[in-house]
Amino acid sequence: MNTSMISYTLGLVVKLEGVLLMLSALVGLIYWEKAGWSFVITIALCLLIGFGLTRKKPENKVFYVKEGFVIVALSWIVLSLLGSLPFVISGSIKNPIDAVFETVSGFTTTGASILADVESLPRCILFWRSFTHWIGGMGVLVFLLTILPMDGGSYMNLMKAESPGPSVSRLVPTVKSTATILYEIYIGMTILQIILLLLGKMPLFDALTLSFGTAGTGGFGIKNDSIAGYSSYAQTVITIFMILFGVNFNVYFFLLMGKVKQAFQIEELRWYLLIIVASIAVITVDILGIHGGVRDSLHHAAFQVGSIITTTGYSTVDFNVWPQLSRTILVMLMFVGACAGSTGGGIKVSRFIILLKSMRKELHQFLHPRSVQKIKMDGKMVEHEVVRMTNVFMVAYILIFSFSVLLIALDEKDLVTNFTAVAATINNIGPGLELVGPAANFSVFSNPAKIILTFDMLAGRLEIFPILLLFVRDTWKKF
Amino acid sequence: MNTSMISYTLGLVVKLEGVLLMLSALVGLIYWEKAGWSFVITIALCLLIGFGLTRKKPENKVFYVKEGFVIVALSWIVLSLLGSLPFVISGSIKNPIDAVFETVSGFTTTGASILADVESLPRCILFWRSFTHWIGGMGVLVFLLTILPMDGGSYMNLMKAESPGPSVSRLVPTVKSTATILYEIYIGMTILQIILLLLGKMPLFDALTLSFGTAGTGGFGIKNDSIAGYSSYAQTVITIFMILFGVNFNVYFFLLMGKVKQAFQIEELRWYLLIIVASIAVITVDILGIHGGVRDSLHHAAFQVGSIITTTGYSTVDFNVWPQLSRTILVMLMFVGACAGSTGGGIKVSRFIILLKSMRKELHQFLHPRSVQKIKMDGKMVEHEVVRMTNVFMVAYILIFSFSVLLIALDEKDLVTNFTAVAATINNIGPGLELVGPAANFSVFSNPAKIILTFDMLAGRLEIFPILLLFVRDTWKKF
Repeated sequence: MNTSMISYTLGLVVKLEGVLLMLSALVGLIYWEKAGWSFVITIALCLLIGFGLTRKKPENKVFYVKEGFVIVALSWIVLSLLGSLPFVISGSIKNPIDAVFETVSGFTTTGASILADVESLPRCILFWRSFTHWIGGMGVLVFLLTILPMDGGSYMNLMKAESPGPSVSRLVPTVKSTATILYEIYIGMTILQIILLLLGKMPLFDALTLSFGTAGTGGFGIKNDSIAGYSSYAQTVITIFMILFGVNFNVYFFLLMGKVKQAFQIEELRWYLLIIVASIAVITVDILGIHGGVRDSLHHAAFQVGSIITTTGYSTVDFNVWPQLSRTILVMLMFVGACAGSTGGGIKVSRFIILLKSMRKELHQFLHPRSVQKIKMDGKMVEHEVVRMTNVFMVAYILIFSFSVLLIALDEKDLVTNFTAVAATINNIGPGLELVGPAANFSVFSNPAKIILTFDMLAGRLEIFPILLLFVRDTWKKF
Repeated sequence: MNTSMISYTLGLVVKLEGVLLMLSALVGLIYWEKAGWSFVITIALCLLIGFGLTRKKPENKVFYVKEGFVIVALSWIVLSLLGSLPFVISGSIKNPIDAVFETVSGFTTTGASILADVESLPRCILFWRSFTHWIGGMGVLVFLLTILPMDGGSYMNLMKAESPGPSVSRLVPTVKSTATILYEIYIGMTILQIILLLLGKMPLFDALTLSFGTAGTGGFGIKNDSIAGYSSYAQTVITIFMILFGVNFNVYFFLLMGKVKQAFQIEELRWYLLIIVASIAVITVDILGIHGGVRDSLHHAAFQVGSIITTTGYSTVDFNVWPQLSRTILVMLMFVGACAGSTGGGIKVSRFIILLKSMRKELHQFLHPRSVQKIKMDGKMVEHEVVRMTNVFMVAYILIFSFSVLLIALDEKDLVTNFTAVAATINNIGPGLELVGPAANFSVFSNPAKIILTFDMLAGRLEIFPILLLFVRDTWKKF
């Protein structure tokens, strides 16, 4: 284990957090809020720790997959612990476990909150809450790769560990350029959304925070009724952008390169859009009459489907009171999740495609024992390694899911609450059903249950293995 | 596709059913019940069809895995359709879909019922209901193998398709002897349970039917309150035998051969017992005070845990009203299921062991990329084929499960009802929670929903692939 490289990278991450926190301090200054000082203190602490850890450059700059995973897991934990300080220092959230829950929920772009009343929070705190979504969406180590003169094969391991999906591909030969292109697309689309929201006469502060939450597919709002109070135009813009941010960013890269045909040949994109259209259609019919006519039903169905499948978690209505069929579809979409290589969470559409194709292959092999068939996706062979890791991912996912439901059942809440609370956190969505429905929040849980759900959010965002490796003794052995 | 062999075997199965139905006709005669005539009619029909189909012996007696699966799937469907006739003819169940549901529930040893009042049924009908459990528990084609002069490699394919678990091993060199040994153990244990229940002064009719239900891990009772009304002694006997019938029958074979050490070295057995003991312990504490003191809590916890993990489905109390932790544990046990090679259903303990081990192996490989590790169970290497099929099984299972929940959600019942109704049928348990809890029944569902749940019971008992193959076009191609 290359510990000096790990602590050095951690130092860089903490310094970066200090810099990112300055934006919130600035918001505090602009609105002349006392809570702004909590950011100044946290920034000082971050820079102190950051410079301390990076004082000595590591001699051995090589690290392997294992170190990549450990760095990413530790970075996210440290980021969240330090990032929770402004909540505690400003007194906005008194219980430190709640503050960590809220921060992890922010960085992992979950959007599950323990706050009942967000409207009473200072502006700078609301800004930080939403900004954590934006930082976490594309990944903080991917960001680091864009600004630092890091290169060489090892850095691909950081990106692999932080980016969602069964496999990560370089868009261009160098890691730094790939990361830069991803962030350029990310920033460009965020700005476009902000402009469109401003055109609809939304105040700048709202447009900024809501766009951060959309871009990261996070879901923290700045109003107690989430997005319900905004204009139909704003809701439509957010619907479209939620769905866009759930798309594999490779699609946008192809589009930028003028390869339109290639972009739409990506199987995952076609399945993703198909699932969205089908779900909206069924739910629209199912909720007809609840929210007015066909037009309104379609509007709310599209918003909620877009919000849940991309694991954003905004809501315009309380879908907890929808008919059972619609509720069931939403619960299933929670697991499907967005595309790999997007900012969305969940199991990912491409994983399901791989699993389905491997099932079809096995059935075919069963009927024709002598034939040899390979799994293909987008015309390319899927490596055996990817199929195997997808299977292992599913097993680990099911195990963590089951144990979490079992452990939080100690709180004696109802089954639907427990099941959807875990589904909403491990898939980084935010709201679940019943006691954790869109109109409620996670403060109903005990501290131990909150710690488990916090773990689930991290495990979900980092796709389990980085977090799981921290608990394997072999990881910490010198070799 | 060797169609002449398939129809010939189907003929044998139908003839066998005709013979098995004679026992119920006899019960009708003994109790001088009108309903007995419905069996006479059905027997005549079975024999007519049976002799018709077996008139011409097939020239080509060889069949492959595919044909084995198709024979088993079709046999179970035909068995259920013919077996449902006595319910309809006698007027005990008027709706034919209900009658098929009840019969499939019997043969698949599910024990889910659409009847609210079983006590009003004629004795011969009650006997047939319980007897289908006993027939289905060990499998009807396995039974056929014991009585007919069938042998040769192809017949192993029938056993493979009908026996539960990721892999089937021959206890002795010939298939016929293996099947015979299994049925001898099965009959021996059933008789032992009947004797023990009679010693507790239970009436013979009750002892017979309840033992059939226990041996097949079925769960149909002959009282409206399931097992609640019987003595504590009888409940304890049933608890022990439920758990015994959930054990891999290889264990009993080893014990009979005097290989005690080898028997207890079977990993699946140890895990199975560990899960049972742990679940009983936690639930006993959780329900303390609901059913009296420690002794009563332990008694009811043991009964319900044994009933659910072995997928029997008997109940002594309405666990639907238990605290959430206990309910959650029971829901999880529904999925775990019994041991492979037992009469129980569910996903099977050994599948989870294989999945866990393959996950551990992948993590190890991840940390030590150059090392090669194999998965072992009971000291023997697990074939790659078995691991792969276990993964494919899980995928198919999750897909069928999800689609079933989605489709029965059209009935607009609550999520817990839908989820546990599918869990209780696909895992062949019987009762679920809420509207399908132990004190309720499946008549609340619409006909389409009942058809889906019937499909789930068959898919669960035959472990998906035989049933799935019926829907693949390639299966029906000549080659």
